[in-house]
Amino acid sequence: MSDRLVERIAAVLLERGEWLATAESCTGGMIAQQLTDLAGSSGWFERGLVTYSNAAKMELLAVPDEVLAQHGAVSGECALAMARGLLRAAPVDWGVAVTGIAGPGGGSADKPVGTVWVSWIRRGCPPEAHRFFFEGGRDSVRRQSTQAVLEGLLYRIREAQ
Amino acid sequence: MSDRLVERIAAVLLERGEWLATAESCTGGMIAQQLTDLAGSSGWFERGLVTYSNAAKMELLAVPDEVLAQHGAVSGECALAMARGLLRAAPVDWGVAVTGIAGPGGGSADKPVGTVWVSWIRRGCPPEAHRFFFEGGRDSVRRQSTQAVLEGLLYRIREAQ
Repeated sequence: MSDRLVERIAAVLLERGEWLATAESCTGGMIAQQLTDLAGSSGWFERGLVTYSNAAKMELLAVPDEVLAQHGAVSGECALAMARGLLRAAPVDWGVAVTGIAGPGGGSADKPVGTVWVSWIRRGCPPEAHRFFFEGGRDSVRRQSTQAVLEGLLYRIREAQ
Repeated sequence: MSDRLVERIAAVLLERGEWLATAESCTGGMIAQQLTDLAGSSGWFERGLVTYSNAAKMELLAVPDEVLAQHGAVSGECALAMARGLLRAAPVDWGVAVTGIAGPGGGSADKPVGTVWVSWIRRGCPPEAHRFFFEGGRDSVRRQSTQAVLEGLLYRIREAQ
């Protein structure tokens, strides 16, 4: 399922000579792994950052201290900051960022397990962020997050044509 | 298979309060993804860098220009430089780096598809690098690389106890 999605994303990026980078927290590299599963991905995938710790989010993506302190790592503010930081750091046209609670631990009444924020960004445009609530176990939440990121990305790169 | 391996790696790191980071080229995030598949991995996995382009290897891991120009991205020299750069960049005790040719393209007589260099590093110690030749398609080479990285890591963190 994701394979077809990745092929479509690749086709558009290749045709336009555009490049993509990823910033992942809860998916832990699953998005980069699925993108690079496709042969030739080195022609449009530039880098992926798995910013698992807060230190990594701050150092690699310049997520402000205040965002983490006031809103937490699982927030729209953090997803937007990750996306902005990714495009500042990487020589790419498109970026995706994802932060969420894959579980089984880490949930709260406010942010239950399965809460995932995704942000998409195109160079020169402000980033967008959407919140998802996914059901299921850790693996399922990570897979659904990856799917949502890639579907949203394909939609946006096609719209931008 | 890798799940048991990751559980064992996690148990040793958690017991000792040690942290791990990854630098991946040909595996494209598969190692980080498998590590973070395990619940609680945020207690010992700090960050993962998927340095797919040469620019990413230079910017994020300080791989010297000369290493890439003289030896290429798929070389023991590059794997060692990636490992050293990873430990300079990340506040971790252990690092793994992998760079190779997953195919189907990119191979040569000198470096056929399936050539993979892996480096393991512990803070305070020089990095080690080993070369592997894996057979099979792209997915198989990536899976065998991931397995080799994790097996070698478990061996080394146990030896270091």
